[in-house]
Amino acid sequence: MPETVTAAILVIGDEILSGRTKDRNIGYITEYLTAIGIDTREVRVVPDEEDDIVAALNALRHRYDYVFTTGGIGPTHDDITADSVAKAFGVPIDVDPRARAMLLERIPEKDLNEARLRMARIPHGAELVENSVSKAPGFMIGNVVTMAGVPSIMQVMLDNVAPKLKTGTRMLQVTIEAAGLKEGDIGTPYGVLAKAHPGVIMGSYPMMNDKGFYTRLVLRAKDEGLLAAAEAAVVAMVEAHKPARSEIVVTRGG
Amino acid sequence: MPETVTAAILVIGDEILSGRTKDRNIGYITEYLTAIGIDTREVRVVPDEEDDIVAALNALRHRYDYVFTTGGIGPTHDDITADSVAKAFGVPIDVDPRARAMLLERIPEKDLNEARLRMARIPHGAELVENSVSKAPGFMIGNVVTMAGVPSIMQVMLDNVAPKLKTGTRMLQVTIEAAGLKEGDIGTPYGVLAKAHPGVIMGSYPMMNDKGFYTRLVLRAKDEGLLAAAEAAVVAMVEAHKPARSEIVVTRGG
Repeated sequence: MPETVTAAILVIGDEILSGRTKDRNIGYITEYLTAIGIDTREVRVVPDEEDDIVAALNALRHRYDYVFTTGGIGPTHDDITADSVAKAFGVPIDVDPRARAMLLERIPEKDLNEARLRMARIPHGAELVENSVSKAPGFMIGNVVTMAGVPSIMQVMLDNVAPKLKTGTRMLQVTIEAAGLKEGDIGTPYGVLAKAHPGVIMGSYPMMNDKGFYTRLVLRAKDEGLLAAAEAAVVAMVEAHKPARSEIVVTRGG
Repeated sequence: MPETVTAAILVIGDEILSGRTKDRNIGYITEYLTAIGIDTREVRVVPDEEDDIVAALNALRHRYDYVFTTGGIGPTHDDITADSVAKAFGVPIDVDPRARAMLLERIPEKDLNEARLRMARIPHGAELVENSVSKAPGFMIGNVVTMAGVPSIMQVMLDNVAPKLKTGTRMLQVTIEAAGLKEGDIGTPYGVLAKAHPGVIMGSYPMMNDKGFYTRLVLRAKDEGLLAAAEAAVVAMVEAHKPARSEIVVTRGG
């Protein structure tokens, strides 16, 4: 039986909601989790407001196996993620000696002021997630993984926490690109095939290139046999509908 | 008195959650709405599942002035956004003669098959949002604006619906970049200033360039006077803390 492990991503930051900063973490994390066998089921972006963060965290952590947060763990007053996570879990938060020691690897003790010590505030009971880039750690408490918002730092944290996560069966994927065929040309027969192959998630995406619109069909399943059967049926259907001499490109995996 | 108009964005699509497609709409819409005086307060990404879409829509549309959805309005079986919006509002949905006429501007009647007619299914009571790129319209019902997921099409829909939206006072912005100053150097005094200027949202972002880390302080307010006062106070604080001969760059607006 394929095993399913689910996740949500919670992006925290006014700068994402104003559009001033373009998020680069959602795409990275979803792709990363897919690759290791964790299915992202929901993403939320919320402002730097404690009530909003706590409400979103509590909604997501009870619903999914893991929640990954990004943003809001720096040294300034608007970095309130760690405090919000502590509040959501109902645990105290304080300067953690292990986190303080990590900061001292990079920051001379005389510069370890009140602001910088904020980065060592960790909810009680959390495990630290190391950060080789700037040393200030992320952490994991219960099923919530709290990471930095700066992409390069988030990425090393994700690498460090990943081996500790339980993962499910990896989703296998087949992509079928049909040149010269629009979604509307095959929408009805494709829908019939989707119903006939219930173990396979079948998506359809309109694509554009310099020759105009074409269609990308994406088949996803955790069971290789089910996926192969659906692929054969879809390729046969596309063959029957496509314009003469136009290409079908089938790509497996990735 | 500054007026506030709020919005949420609901991105619908398995392909975003798997990471296969990188979302390009969130950043565009948030920036666009900020520019016209609408504050995005929340973003969610959900899969192509009716229950998830309906639940998210109902949570968001009662909480914010507008909800903008992207994705899931094409001709295939996985395009279930219009039906989900109808369900959330408790209204019937059917092929809309106005939408069908729009499709006929691009699609010969003989090709207007069952699949393509899905794109003319519009919840009762909705206004259409025109799409000059591929003709299949989006729509607006109540405070929900439903748009395509393809960025070029979403963008023309947003242009078309924007003049019909109520907008609030635009958020003004000042960015203060302090070379050679890290967030931790000024986190404490900056937090004190943030408390002293309650009408101004003060963010702080760690930045990196080839010279290493530096800090971007972003001040946002709807009131020009409040913003100018905060700017003066923050610039004075940065001047007092920055290394000799390092630059402060102040940018107003945008």
